[in-house]
Amino acid sequence: MKDRKLLMIPGPIEFTPEVMRAMGMPTGSHVAPNFIDAFGQALERLRQVFLCPSGQPFVVAGSGSLAMDMAAANLIEPGDKALVVNTGYFGDRFAAILARYGAEVTEVLAPSIGDEPPLEAVEAALEADQFKLMTITHVDTSTAVCADVPGYAALGRRYGALVVVDGVCSVAGEELRQEEWGVDLALTASQKAVGVPPGLALVVAGPRAMEAWRQRTSPVPNYYADWTQWLPIMEAYEERRPSYYGTPPVNLIWALNVSLGQIVKEGMEARFRRHRWLSDALKAGIGALGMSQVPVSSETTATTITAPYYPDGVDASVLQAINQAGVILAGGLHPEIKTRYFRIGHMGAVTPSDILATLGAIEHGLAHVGYEFEFGAGLAAAQEVLG
Amino acid sequence: MKDRKLLMIPGPIEFTPEVMRAMGMPTGSHVAPNFIDAFGQALERLRQVFLCPSGQPFVVAGSGSLAMDMAAANLIEPGDKALVVNTGYFGDRFAAILARYGAEVTEVLAPSIGDEPPLEAVEAALEADQFKLMTITHVDTSTAVCADVPGYAALGRRYGALVVVDGVCSVAGEELRQEEWGVDLALTASQKAVGVPPGLALVVAGPRAMEAWRQRTSPVPNYYADWTQWLPIMEAYEERRPSYYGTPPVNLIWALNVSLGQIVKEGMEARFRRHRWLSDALKAGIGALGMSQVPVSSETTATTITAPYYPDGVDASVLQAINQAGVILAGGLHPEIKTRYFRIGHMGAVTPSDILATLGAIEHGLAHVGYEFEFGAGLAAAQEVLG
Repeated sequence: MKDRKLLMIPGPIEFTPEVMRAMGMPTGSHVAPNFIDAFGQALERLRQVFLCPSGQPFVVAGSGSLAMDMAAANLIEPGDKALVVNTGYFGDRFAAILARYGAEVTEVLAPSIGDEPPLEAVEAALEADQFKLMTITHVDTSTAVCADVPGYAALGRRYGALVVVDGVCSVAGEELRQEEWGVDLALTASQKAVGVPPGLALVVAGPRAMEAWRQRTSPVPNYYADWTQWLPIMEAYEERRPSYYGTPPVNLIWALNVSLGQIVKEGMEARFRRHRWLSDALKAGIGALGMSQVPVSSETTATTITAPYYPDGVDASVLQAINQAGVILAGGLHPEIKTRYFRIGHMGAVTPSDILATLGAIEHGLAHVGYEFEFGAGLAAAQEVLG
Repeated sequence: MKDRKLLMIPGPIEFTPEVMRAMGMPTGSHVAPNFIDAFGQALERLRQVFLCPSGQPFVVAGSGSLAMDMAAANLIEPGDKALVVNTGYFGDRFAAILARYGAEVTEVLAPSIGDEPPLEAVEAALEADQFKLMTITHVDTSTAVCADVPGYAALGRRYGALVVVDGVCSVAGEELRQEEWGVDLALTASQKAVGVPPGLALVVAGPRAMEAWRQRTSPVPNYYADWTQWLPIMEAYEERRPSYYGTPPVNLIWALNVSLGQIVKEGMEARFRRHRWLSDALKAGIGALGMSQVPVSSETTATTITAPYYPDGVDASVLQAINQAGVILAGGLHPEIKTRYFRIGHMGAVTPSDILATLGAIEHGLAHVGYEFEFGAGLAAAQEVLG
């Protein structure tokens, strides 16, 4: 038997063979015509994938946290007020990053883990003070909660706040319409639904965000994240001109362009549909095996990730048994419930076969640790949705 | 004929097939045992390659500028005084980065482009004020000047300054003995002599640098570069424990570990010797073709890069002709002389064959643009050194 295990964690995910070939291609010069062309095309395609024709894309070597850092460092000046719509671990992180740049941070918390703050609570906060910026974690990787971005963004706009969306676990998988929904900046990392190995921070800033950055009265206090360096570089590559500030990560950018090409070819509507369909199938299987999920309702549940609670009598040791059966899943991340749940990533190039393989391995793992259930029930429920 | 061109620029360089295979391997989980082990081993090997057994390595997704940023952001507090030993473009950049974090920067400039500041001038500056930190660009990629790191570092230590070395174009090629020479922090980027595609910032901080960071009275003003996040992660991977802050660039770190393994196997002394030997051969060839170089003397010349002035009557168009002959070289970078010289990178896995191929293509290029010289003279001179 093949001994490679299926990687179904919330990033890095399974990448396509074409993407991995770009990773392994002999590295070229960062000013060679074929690289300039690939980088320029990747920037153009990012606008299509973020559904933000008027946005300015930034592609920089770094992790998703650099993308968050870039948003905060470029948009916040000391004393600015920022509102964090907090749905988990990554809401906490955004609050910490904003505070680092001198923001006065107000958080609107979800009523419970797995829920999202009601629109009324967010509106009350926006009414009570004048915020320069609000952040929304679209899909919090720690809880699998998918926030109501259009609802929050409309409120943010109405009250004059820049709307920043952490789309690390959403962009190119979960439905996100940056421009239509009034999102001023969206960001992600390469290893999620964008489908490229980890190492790239991806940001698309709309006109209002760029204008806020231009209107700063103080220099950006973070050198590496400062758009002053990166904007001319992004403009040059998009205009197919050679330029230099720091050496771009050539192979990752080749891989990015390959993956974005595949995404654009599939089409964003088809891609959102596929993610919903496969997520529904997996979640049906999880339910049929008697497991509940961290998100409190199907309205607040992501389509890129599933976070089941372990059934009674089962703990994290089941992940090892699932791994033995051929599928790698992730443990809990939210500090308060870390030991009580696990996480399944299903985004990017994920297929129906992957969903079935994952459920098959989960069934084997559960059986191995002595959990009683109808063997095959998870697969049957998923298959019914797959149709 | 094979149509792949030889990449002889000062990074990215030619990487080994084993490194490129690691780049193209199906990405695994960042908490999988085989990745934890590779990351931990890479950290251990970095100490060997930097020749700094007491150092704390940091491996973070980013470019070389992030490594510089990390040094400045973690070590500088507003009002600290910093001395920059400036030998070119990257000295200017370090001065700008230090200033961003509130340092009062003094620069000691080289008497001319291609030279380095005399030790006396640096000592006079150190005597005149109390500096928290001094920076030295070991090899300035814009001029091919190799600075006298042991000389400057000894002075810095004597006057109580932390010694920071930008080793972007030196580490793992040019002789650098971090601990023995009293260097408190050295940094580089993956795509240079370390031999890994671009995308990793690499820093080794000695005990005095770590202590200076611990003694800070203000938080590090840059979130992504802050060691507060990264130190526990580096410690965990080295102790072979899973941990999470941001998703590490899995394939790049696999590739790093492969390359560092190859470097350690060659041995640092042999590696320094090989770089000197191949550099001597190339430079002999360049001289035999009638070209002078930007560095004013052989004592100030790097062994990782060569920066020849174009001969009379020849301009940057010769690079295109050299490219046609199969070798990619880089144009000038130092703003004041940019159009008058070009750059050849020869570091990492570079071989005698690469040196000969490079000189052969340069001869073809020169002939193509009508420069008169004895065809084959460059190759013959190099061959004599290669022996």
